[in-house]
This record gives sequence, C-alpha cells and structure tokens, in this order.
Amino acid sequence: MKTKKLINAGDNAVDEMLEGILCAHPDHLYAVDGMPRAIVARHGPRQGKVGLVIGGGSGHEPTFLGFVGKGLADAAAVGNVFASPPPDPIIACATAANGGAGVLFMYGNYAGDVMNFDMAAEMLAMDDIEVRTVLTTDDIASAPRSQRDKRRGVAGNVFIFKAAGAACDLGYSLDEVERVARHANTRTYTMGVALSPCSLPQTLKPNFAIGEGEMEIGMGIHGEPGVARGALESADQVADTLLYRILSEMQADAGDRVAVLVNSLGSTPLMELYILMRRVSQRLDAAGLAIHTSLVGNYCTSLEMAGASITLMHLDDELQRLIDHPCDCAMFKAR
Amino acid sequence: MKTKKLINAGDNAVDEMLEGILCAHPDHLYAVDGMPRAIVARHGPRQGKVGLVIGGGSGHEPTFLGFVGKGLADAAAVGNVFASPPPDPIIACATAANGGAGVLFMYGNYAGDVMNFDMAAEMLAMDDIEVRTVLTTDDIASAPRSQRDKRRGVAGNVFIFKAAGAACDLGYSLDEVERVARHANTRTYTMGVALSPCSLPQTLKPNFAIGEGEMEIGMGIHGEPGVARGALESADQVADTLLYRILSEMQADAGDRVAVLVNSLGSTPLMELYILMRRVSQRLDAAGLAIHTSLVGNYCTSLEMAGASITLMHLDDELQRLIDHPCDCAMFKAR
Repeated sequence: MKTKKLINAGDNAVDEMLEGILCAHPDHLYAVDGMPRAIVARHGPRQGKVGLVIGGGSGHEPTFLGFVGKGLADAAAVGNVFASPPPDPIIACATAANGGAGVLFMYGNYAGDVMNFDMAAEMLAMDDIEVRTVLTTDDIASAPRSQRDKRRGVAGNVFIFKAAGAACDLGYSLDEVERVARHANTRTYTMGVALSPCSLPQTLKPNFAIGEGEMEIGMGIHGEPGVARGALESADQVADTLLYRILSEMQADAGDRVAVLVNSLGSTPLMELYILMRRVSQRLDAAGLAIHTSLVGNYCTSLEMAGASITLMHLDDELQRLIDHPCDCAMFKAR
Repeated sequence: MKTKKLINAGDNAVDEMLEGILCAHPDHLYAVDGMPRAIVARHGPRQGKVGLVIGGGSGHEPTFLGFVGKGLADAAAVGNVFASPPPDPIIACATAANGGAGVLFMYGNYAGDVMNFDMAAEMLAMDDIEVRTVLTTDDIASAPRSQRDKRRGVAGNVFIFKAAGAACDLGYSLDEVERVARHANTRTYTMGVALSPCSLPQTLKPNFAIGEGEMEIGMGIHGEPGVARGALESADQVADTLLYRILSEMQADAGDRVAVLVNSLGSTPLMELYILMRRVSQRLDAAGLAIHTSLVGNYCTSLEMAGASITLMHLDDELQRLIDHPCDCAMFKAR
C-alpha cells in the first residue's frame, strides 16, 4: 500500500517545495543565484556580524529553512529528503552569510552532514572565511550520557539555533558565538516517541514497521531505532517516561527555569501535543522548575510520522536573554 | 484497527488540551473563572472596543483558540470535538469581551453553532449587551454559488476573523465591524481535498472510509461529503482543480491582489503544502493576480486528517490594510 501524498514526481519534491517556499516568503528568503538549495535570509547577514549557517536533509520542515531570518540563522543549506546537502550549497550559504566576522556552522550530528559541512569549511578556509562548527546533540535516547558527542541532533535544534542566532544578532564575536552555541547545546535535552512511520516521496513506502497499538520510545527523526518498543501508553505515561530521562540528565535545582518544546513529528495534532504539555507542566511544577517560555507545534518533523518529542532547555540568565531575543523568520516569529 | 493517539481518557481530551494551552500560553490566554471552555485574550478586550467572539468545535486547532489575542479575536468558546459549544461559555466569552461597544459573534456556518450562539445572543440582549453575528461561508464546495448563505465556514476563517479583529482593534464601531466582517467573508473562497479520515478521541475509529489511492475533492472539515471522489492526482492537478473553482467564483481582474492560505487538514506536511503553493503561485501569475501575503501550514485542521485546502481572499485596499494589521496570538503572530 502506497502512502498518498500531494506531490508531483517524487524526485522533484524538494526543489518544488523550495520554489513554493520562495513564492510564499519572498520578503524573508531568497536562493543564491544558480544555487537553489542555498536559502538566505533577506534581512539576515550584515557587515561585522558573525554569520550563522544551518542545514541538513529535507523532510523535517520547518527545520531547517523555517529558522532562517533576522535574529536567527542567516542561511540554510538544503539536502534531499533525509540526506545531507553536498558542500556546494553549504559554501554558497557561508559566502552569503559572511559579514567578515566569521561563520558558524550548526547542524545535527549525522555522519553525512559532518562530512559535507567539514568539506565546505575546508574550502572556505582557502577563501579566508573562518568557519567554526557546533554540532547539536540533544537527542538523549541516541547514545549514553558518557558519549554525548555521539548523540544526534533533533528538535532541540530550535532553541540551540535560536540562542546562537541571537548571539550573532547581538554582535558577539565568533569565539563568543561558538561558546554560546556549545553552552546552549549542552543544556538542551530532547526525547521522542514514534507511533507510525513516514514515507519518502520517491518510494511512498513506510520507512519502518511498527505494530498496531505499539509505540517506540526514543526513535530518531529518520526512523533510527529507539530504546524501547511496547504497547502504546497514555499521554501522561509517555510524558512521564520522556521527562524522567530528561530531568535525570538535566539535574536542575528547584527554582531553575526551562524553555519547553512539545514537538509533533508530523501528523500528531495540536490536541495531543497540548495534552502532553499539560503533563509536562505538572511534572515541572512538582520538580519546582519554572516554565519561562514554551513552544508547542510542528518544529522538527519527519514528514507525516506520528509521534512527538519533548525538549527542555535548562536556562540560565544568558540563555534566557538569547531565547527572548526577537527573531523574524518565514515560519517562526518570536516576540 | 484503532487510531493511535497520545491522549488519556478520550472524554477528557478537550479539557486536558485546554489545560495544556493555558500552561503553555499564560501570557496570552486565560479561562473565565469557573468556565474552562471560555478562553479570553489577556490583552484583547478593552473599554470602548467592539469585542470579537469566535468559537466552535474542537479538533480544528489552531482554529479557534489560536486566533485569540491582541489584534484578532477577544475570546473563543470551545466545544467538544467537532461539536458546538453550548450557550454558557459563549455568554461568558461575550461578557469578558464586552467593552461597552457591542460584541460581534463570528463562526463557521454549522447548524449546532448557529443554534447555540443565537441562544447566547438572546440572553446577552437581556443584559443589554448588543450582539451581531456574521457567519463564515467560505467553503465553495459546500453549496452552489446561488446559495452562498448555505455554505460552511472552513480555513478561510483565518483571514475573515483577522480582518474583523483588526477592525475591532482599530476602533471601528459595531456597524462598521459587522460591515467589514461580511465584506471579508464575501471575498474569501476555500476549497479542499481529503486523502484520509481522522478519528475522534472517544472512538479512535475513522470518521469516514476512503479507498487506497483515492482522494475526495471538496470534503468538509468534519468529513462532510465533497463534490467528487476519484484517483489521487498530482499536486499540480489538485491545485489546478481547486483554483479553477475558486478563480471562477472570484472573478478578479488582472492586477488584483490576493491573500493566499495553503492549509493542512492535519497530517499533510509542509513539503506537500509548499508544492501546492508553488502551483498556486504559477496559476495566480498566469491570471495576472499578485500575492500580497501568504500563509502555509496548519491553520484549520481536522485532527490528523490528510489533505489540504486552498483559500484566496480577494483583497481591496481596506481588506489589505486589515490583513496587514499586527496581531499577537498564542498560535499566530502577524507582523
């Protein structure tokens, strides 16, 4: 049975999506000339500002493109569905984002992305554009705590990119932006649950199998295996399971503040996300933690996968200020 | 086979969702004391301003709650899933929204909503609160053109509410707000396509059946029958079908401006919506129409239904100004 999608030829889906994005958001975004997979913020890059370049595979919209805009990322390099962009659009993004103060690459920790962004960074060095890299590793289900640098980057990207983008916009130096980005990543924790697979536009076939009435805790955003598969539990039980792991790692003190993201993997509707949010709020209350800000919705998706993830960013004064900094992106506005 | 949902008891889904919404957005929203289904904008109602009250069944989030906020609606009355709110929360909303200049009720044209909102209006009249009502009827598939007042209100609500809410915020009189709201409704046209059913939290069973590889053009947001069922077509063909009907009714002249909404019915991801948006843009270009603004995403959903709708609002100078007016809602920000 083929998944039904409103697409034309599967191979054209990414490029046609990008055309649609530029039609819808011409005031926010443009593509580099001759490089349709390099999308730049119209009011992002400026002289003397560190440039922030993000990117990765398609299929996670509004990640990454949706977070390109004034106050957040300057450009995003766009790959095929669930596949890294090659070096060329990354280089084009960095060149467009460069304001003479260096460029920070930020993206989820996946082997293909690391290879291509590193290759781009080497080539940019030859053009005297200084590039630093901070990988996001917020998915706590993807490797043990002792191997944080092996973990994948998932929905927590939103907060991590946001903090770094705000630092860029505030005129921080490349050293300082890099420090903030690493700090933001270290204090961001995500864990998800998947209820159904998604399918790629080229195949229209489910990317994994899961039984009726089953869920998988900790599954990755490309269907990478999680940590436990079992019978679907109630929203409260699922939220408790995810938060138990997150709070154990976070080791916050009563009175600490967090930013919360309850994210749909694609087809899980707002009603279910807010039911999860209710339980998150109850658990945080019980732990004496204050919710400074919260996002609920589709922020980092896996096409039409059903499921959700919960992210906490453990705020301090600096991160709180950066998370509160205004941004104006095509698919995300804050303040 | 039961639909998998991240909920607790199905009967509690709406109330638990509302609790989650208030936890997530305490700066934007509150519930009237003792009336958890009456949700009010914290910075909405003010003395001398016409109050705008919207509402309807749950399951369409972010419609209606998400459009409650400064510059848009002052309050929303919340019903059970796909069911009208009873008069009590509507009355509570109107009382909270009342600034002494009258209250406008706006909601989609469904029999249950009409009955309950009308009953509320009668009771408010006894308290000397003047209420007017404008029904939205943007779903052009739901009745012939000669019976516009029989049509249902669907995703075009976003633009229609937005225009009326801006008029309220700008201090228009009740007469003028009512005129603007009717005018906005008259110039807004929506048509959708459904690819899969959704299921209610209480039953977890699909609300209609549709074959593998089939789509239904013109289906309503509660699964009301559409105008044609057939084999799934390409995104471009579907967009052409929907736009052909919309543009035939709209009868715009070259040079006219439109606001565009490409809306997911729930599980259809941004990738597909932007592929539709690309074609919408091509067709509008060909017709000589300019896109003044566009929204692409989940604005009026049917839980996890797959499918999409296209809305055009035929702008004039007044509507354009109102659509551009800033608003700050929990789930929708403009400017």
